[in-house]
Amino acid sequence: MEIFDLVREHALIRSSQGVLGWDQEAKLPPAAVDHRAKQLAWLAARAHELAVSDRWKSALGQAEAADDGCDTVRGANLRQLRREFERASQLPVELVSRQTTVSSHAKHAWVEARKRGDFSAFAPHLEKQLGLAREKADLWGYESEPYDALLESYERGTRTAAVAALLEVIKPALREIAAQAVEKSASRAVKPPAGSFPVPLQVEFNARVAEAIGFDFQAGRIDTTAHPFCTTLGPCDVRLTTRYDENDFTSSLFGVLHEAGHGMYEQGLPADDFGLPSGSAVSLGIHESQSRLWENHIGRSRAFWERWYPVACDLFPQLAGFPLDDFLAHVRHAAFTPIRVEADEATYDLHIILRFEIERRMLRGELAVADVPVAWNESFRDLFGFVPENDTAGCLQDIHWAMGGLGYFPTYTLGNLNAAQIFAAARKHPEIARAIDIADYAPLLAWLRERIHAFGGTLDPAELMESACGGKPSAVDYLSHLRERYL
Amino acid sequence: MEIFDLVREHALIRSSQGVLGWDQEAKLPPAAVDHRAKQLAWLAARAHELAVSDRWKSALGQAEAADDGCDTVRGANLRQLRREFERASQLPVELVSRQTTVSSHAKHAWVEARKRGDFSAFAPHLEKQLGLAREKADLWGYESEPYDALLESYERGTRTAAVAALLEVIKPALREIAAQAVEKSASRAVKPPAGSFPVPLQVEFNARVAEAIGFDFQAGRIDTTAHPFCTTLGPCDVRLTTRYDENDFTSSLFGVLHEAGHGMYEQGLPADDFGLPSGSAVSLGIHESQSRLWENHIGRSRAFWERWYPVACDLFPQLAGFPLDDFLAHVRHAAFTPIRVEADEATYDLHIILRFEIERRMLRGELAVADVPVAWNESFRDLFGFVPENDTAGCLQDIHWAMGGLGYFPTYTLGNLNAAQIFAAARKHPEIARAIDIADYAPLLAWLRERIHAFGGTLDPAELMESACGGKPSAVDYLSHLRERYL
Repeated sequence: MEIFDLVREHALIRSSQGVLGWDQEAKLPPAAVDHRAKQLAWLAARAHELAVSDRWKSALGQAEAADDGCDTVRGANLRQLRREFERASQLPVELVSRQTTVSSHAKHAWVEARKRGDFSAFAPHLEKQLGLAREKADLWGYESEPYDALLESYERGTRTAAVAALLEVIKPALREIAAQAVEKSASRAVKPPAGSFPVPLQVEFNARVAEAIGFDFQAGRIDTTAHPFCTTLGPCDVRLTTRYDENDFTSSLFGVLHEAGHGMYEQGLPADDFGLPSGSAVSLGIHESQSRLWENHIGRSRAFWERWYPVACDLFPQLAGFPLDDFLAHVRHAAFTPIRVEADEATYDLHIILRFEIERRMLRGELAVADVPVAWNESFRDLFGFVPENDTAGCLQDIHWAMGGLGYFPTYTLGNLNAAQIFAAARKHPEIARAIDIADYAPLLAWLRERIHAFGGTLDPAELMESACGGKPSAVDYLSHLRERYL
Repeated sequence: MEIFDLVREHALIRSSQGVLGWDQEAKLPPAAVDHRAKQLAWLAARAHELAVSDRWKSALGQAEAADDGCDTVRGANLRQLRREFERASQLPVELVSRQTTVSSHAKHAWVEARKRGDFSAFAPHLEKQLGLAREKADLWGYESEPYDALLESYERGTRTAAVAALLEVIKPALREIAAQAVEKSASRAVKPPAGSFPVPLQVEFNARVAEAIGFDFQAGRIDTTAHPFCTTLGPCDVRLTTRYDENDFTSSLFGVLHEAGHGMYEQGLPADDFGLPSGSAVSLGIHESQSRLWENHIGRSRAFWERWYPVACDLFPQLAGFPLDDFLAHVRHAAFTPIRVEADEATYDLHIILRFEIERRMLRGELAVADVPVAWNESFRDLFGFVPENDTAGCLQDIHWAMGGLGYFPTYTLGNLNAAQIFAAARKHPEIARAIDIADYAPLLAWLRERIHAFGGTLDPAELMESACGGKPSAVDYLSHLRERYL
């Protein structure tokens, strides 16, 4: 069908953007930023043009008319393409390329502002991003508030009010778990021996772990960037990145476990359908479930470290006399930190709640950009009991707003909930649970491939969760998991 | 003017191709090759489409009609764009895409044939490339022989007969110099002390040298690939690559000096004119002059090593007792080798003469593809006194014919001649010569920027040489340089 050829062409353009984007983070010389922004804008404009073209529209219409309903994957692809087409064609080309330019400059300004802790240098860019977000929301339309329209980009079928209600319900439990976990950790503060963990050895350890849990290096690689991420540059080209702390090898390792979780999801999507909804990740909340599953449910488990701690001790001899139990307490250490990406499992979602509330208020016009630092610090004090020492450690810490990713944050917490529910469902199979308990993850990965990855975007996130786990999305498994591990 | 906007858009596409190509050589996971080929083909098609479009044609025509001749750079840009447009539009799209397919298969077959030393497996592909080269030459037209039309792609305004006459004239001198240099080197075979030269230390040394000679790391970087190259991904984004030999740090260093020469030329082109002829390198023969100048005239000079040998000795302690004179003899060691890319300065051009004569005879129909191995070996015996042990070390060694690059080889020798003439002209300025003699290359680079780089492609190579050096292109300086250094 012609529409599928066009979608594949679109994926070629988008994945070329991906290559340029990856290079920008991992390799780009400082003076080359402007030209890279132009290249990315050109590609973004071509991708958008194609996806809203008359040719696309009529090919999609023809395919829909010709669809006999026999092929459920084809049907799901057409429905999702229709949904995406309607959303894409509501945005003028001019806006799309403006967004790219604004984002590229905002990112740059954010880096500088963050270095100097100077929110005012970033504020005009955030203002522009907020304006663009509102413009887009108005063009897309929404049920009850602009945030709905943005959230739809990341978590289709999910409404802001529902997320807000969910967060409201679990907030007291999360606060209680966090407070108790932090208290418990403080009373048991055992640090692993100091001493250098040489980067080349960390690289080796991470690669062995990533390979052992199932990341395919024939179709991917791991590089170094300032902030860890995972990006897919083609059906067999998944790039993970991490960063290294010479004093703590677990920092790069948990980065790799997290990103490898994203990467294995990407590697598990049907490669022949690359670019089609059936060959694409369904949502950020599902994507994050995969990263969190490997990072937290596997990577902070006793069984995992019973397997890998001896290897770490071989590579890093200073660990030799440090008991596994103390090391486990270390990787499960809970503490209140101003920085989201440094936050542990027990306190992480409080950071999300703060961001969700602030960006929702900005979008509703209840909070001016200039007032974000004050609002951030007030909310932070309420949740964590102290105030970040500056905006670098406060409202300037995340790149999301610089990239125009308003509406993105709640998917992290949705990912945590999904991860727990999916992991619990998988463990109900005795042979998977037995294998997990001896750090053999092949059966678990096979189950994820079959129940999650293989579906691509043919089901909505909530449908996928129900099909995989046999129950509606819920916070029950997540809260049990946190309570069991931290209380 | 609209035509310049179109040219800049074309440059965005081409430089995006550049990013994907660089990544393919430096980073691509093995399983991702097919998808990358599709991405590159898509970009190539867009670039070609644009450059032969009606819009381009009419914008160019309008700009020509409106040109009042006052702005010489604009005039030169329009003339060169016209020249390129005529050449591009003389090739039917069908031929261009056939060339891509033939080249992709030929490259693959060449890799396999080279592995097995089996010329017959490559011959049908060379036959096809030869056919395509003739087709293109016929479409482009030529003065006296098809080779002219191909050479024009790489060295505009240069004729085959002139190159042949030049090579005929210098051949006896080159043979004599090579023979004597090889004999002298054999009698003075002093190898530097063995022992590992750790790659991270080579990386550090190379970066210090590259920075000191003027390569701008704010607008470029150095990475590792199987074969060294330089590619420009934007006006401030020049990527060099090299490869490392743990037993010989000079291998990666001379790779970097050579590629940095290319890179500094690219960094010296007018950045605001990126993609326009005035912001682009003029020809391969001029490009190669810049790499050869830094690699050979600077990098193998006594003054350079008086400055850098102590640094090398600090980094690589095994060198400490090895005298500078012996080290200099090592970096100027001359020997006959069957492999062009391993050939030294004193013997290199003989390899080019051999290739030029063979491909010219093929194009004239005087040499059948099947007879290439015999012709190669006969010519090789005549020039070097022995025969390569197999075709892998003989007529299968270079990728150029597999890629369809017939007519490319002579630009290497033109580059050598140009380098010597340019270097001699620069040294005529006492302050430049004095600085060079204490390894301070800032005045030399400033002169190159002003006399060569700043012109981009606004002059033909021969005009540029005359304007920079105050005399017609000639071999005099090159032969003096070789005689002085090697006899």
